[in-house]
Amino acid sequence: MNDLRVNGRRLQEYLVGLSRHGRTAQGGVSRVAYSQADIEGREYTIALMWQAGLQVRVDPVGNIFGCREGSESGAPAILFGSHIDSVPNGGAYDGALGSMAAIEVVQALAEAGYCNRHPLEVAIWADEEGGLIGSRGYVGALSDSDLSASGEDGISLADKIRRIDGHPERIGDAKPADGSITAYVELHVEQGSTLESEGIDIGIVQGFVGINHYDVTITGRADHAGTTPMNARSDALLAAAATVLAVDETVKSIPGEQVGTVGRLCVRPGVPNVVPGEVELTVELRDLEMALIESVWRRIQLKLEEIATGHGIEVAHTLRQSLPGALTDPRIRRAIAKAAEVCCLSSRSMSSGAGHDAQNLARICPAGMIFVPSVGGVSHSPEEHTRPADAENGANVLLQTILQLDQW
Amino acid sequence: MNDLRVNGRRLQEYLVGLSRHGRTAQGGVSRVAYSQADIEGREYTIALMWQAGLQVRVDPVGNIFGCREGSESGAPAILFGSHIDSVPNGGAYDGALGSMAAIEVVQALAEAGYCNRHPLEVAIWADEEGGLIGSRGYVGALSDSDLSASGEDGISLADKIRRIDGHPERIGDAKPADGSITAYVELHVEQGSTLESEGIDIGIVQGFVGINHYDVTITGRADHAGTTPMNARSDALLAAAATVLAVDETVKSIPGEQVGTVGRLCVRPGVPNVVPGEVELTVELRDLEMALIESVWRRIQLKLEEIATGHGIEVAHTLRQSLPGALTDPRIRRAIAKAAEVCCLSSRSMSSGAGHDAQNLARICPAGMIFVPSVGGVSHSPEEHTRPADAENGANVLLQTILQLDQW
Repeated sequence: MNDLRVNGRRLQEYLVGLSRHGRTAQGGVSRVAYSQADIEGREYTIALMWQAGLQVRVDPVGNIFGCREGSESGAPAILFGSHIDSVPNGGAYDGALGSMAAIEVVQALAEAGYCNRHPLEVAIWADEEGGLIGSRGYVGALSDSDLSASGEDGISLADKIRRIDGHPERIGDAKPADGSITAYVELHVEQGSTLESEGIDIGIVQGFVGINHYDVTITGRADHAGTTPMNARSDALLAAAATVLAVDETVKSIPGEQVGTVGRLCVRPGVPNVVPGEVELTVELRDLEMALIESVWRRIQLKLEEIATGHGIEVAHTLRQSLPGALTDPRIRRAIAKAAEVCCLSSRSMSSGAGHDAQNLARICPAGMIFVPSVGGVSHSPEEHTRPADAENGANVLLQTILQLDQW
Repeated sequence: MNDLRVNGRRLQEYLVGLSRHGRTAQGGVSRVAYSQADIEGREYTIALMWQAGLQVRVDPVGNIFGCREGSESGAPAILFGSHIDSVPNGGAYDGALGSMAAIEVVQALAEAGYCNRHPLEVAIWADEEGGLIGSRGYVGALSDSDLSASGEDGISLADKIRRIDGHPERIGDAKPADGSITAYVELHVEQGSTLESEGIDIGIVQGFVGINHYDVTITGRADHAGTTPMNARSDALLAAAATVLAVDETVKSIPGEQVGTVGRLCVRPGVPNVVPGEVELTVELRDLEMALIESVWRRIQLKLEEIATGHGIEVAHTLRQSLPGALTDPRIRRAIAKAAEVCCLSSRSMSSGAGHDAQNLARICPAGMIFVPSVGGVSHSPEEHTRPADAENGANVLLQTILQLDQW
């Protein structure tokens, strides 16, 4: 069994075939959930599942499942997969790799005559990029108000789900029965540069980071940029600039993998000839440990107080959103580590800085995640790339992990 | 003649009367050029001119002139006045003080039986806040393309000028004949806090600052805020924050009255969970000496290069607009200084950080400008205020200055 491998060439064909649906002039992929390109990509994926001998069904949220029965009656299913929707003008690997690899894994197992005990179920989660919608629906975390809310296009989520053959009115039926899932495993591109820069083949995801998003409002006084002497100003942007630098310094001052970002910053009135009176900015902190996020924020708060005093301005802040992190299952992590070893690949433990469907699955079953290197760490961009050898390595580690889980 | 003074109570009545046109709920004034409130304010002003015995005419740009003939045939006119339009939700003194004081000065001179040699001409410049439009037209600096260009409301400047009884098709007739003007003097509120903070009654404007407006574009790389380690980022906002602080430090590092402002700063993509890839910001530098502005900018440029290298990002910049400064006439400055002395008022020489109609008039005749304190330096705001005593002081200095000019 340790010799079993996927067909790397075929995996590439699947990836290229899928990338034709939504390909952009820039060489990227725009396969936004519920779009015509997404619908065509789903048809392509379902056809591959049929070819691989899987029984296909679409659940009420629009998730696609392709199932190969197991030999042991009543054994809970092993679930593995990813998503095929993309951000606008995204890349050809984010989600697509894990989806195509999952199909290739079942196909390779079938061709090798492997007789699986557990049912093997390939899952293609709907609308991952829109907020992990498909997997949220699957674990019962999508509310009626989520379904009825209109997007920026004025169309409700429920109506969009109907476009992909979902049945939002039966959303309650999406959730699997307790104990019906053995585990969930997902292969994905890293979307960061850690593996590539360290020359490591496989990332074993330890957990998904928690995210705290703070809104900071800095209030000075808008003044005429010509008539107000430098020493008579209360320039909100000066204090905001000091804040941006303080966030960066504080996050970097502590060893660890935590990250901190000021991504949005709006200046009011925001015209060249008026001293800025008010600045609103966001501070987003991520780490596996919420306690560490809170400790970093306390240090930033102290600096904000210093900045307010030093610049003679007011600083107010509020925690806008707090998403707790989630850990992967330690037994699955060990299975992935062993699978990498079997495939003679180097691996390291790492946290996922991005959200993934596996994060939702971790709520209802043991979940694990495999990362492979992203060239240059680039993602959500037409330049996104993962080398064919890395894609194949990831699929092989997925296959060898499934083989171990099948013994549970 | 040194005892001649304006009627301060009447000046206040004029100011209060004018402020009724466009008064806002916040207690400020919205008398935006060409609006109904502006038209009513103009009618009010014309009525005051009639009462003061002036001959009224409106020129092709919409400027209002009220003339009192002089005793000496063919003597060039002494021009003095200001504007009555305001910014949206502005104050009751910016422009209004100089306009009402000019009428009060002629009235006070008439009541005292003063027989002026030169014609005395009160000028109310149209649309000062929109870019010194009326005075630009008067000095022949308004082009056909200025007139045909549409504002944000889609209406051409020419059509707006017609609303206030101007004749844009005869704009060429607005400019006075060479040698027909002795001098121009304008009284205005300081719109800054220098006079108030130093406890000085009268500011003698030495000149109008030049303005260089630079656009700076900082290009880093947009990255996922979760998956990109801190040491692998090219965060354009970090470099922009350093730039904002560098502009402030550089401007303050040199003795003098120069000012520098980053008033606009836009972050792209500008969302909380993406490391900023690009920032555009404006740097505006003002000083009486263009050479000093350029020297400050060279120092800022050196810092920008350091920031670019230090952050591994690209910085591009371009000079978007350069408005040369203008000096007032030294003889008029001396006349204003002497007038302040006659009125037993303290005075100081200062530059004007804001643009004024007098800046345009300086192109065609000797021009001078008198400042009085603004409470708290506040302007373009409902809180704008100038104490009645200061308003009266300014009008008296204007009167005593006119008396001297009448001897030229």
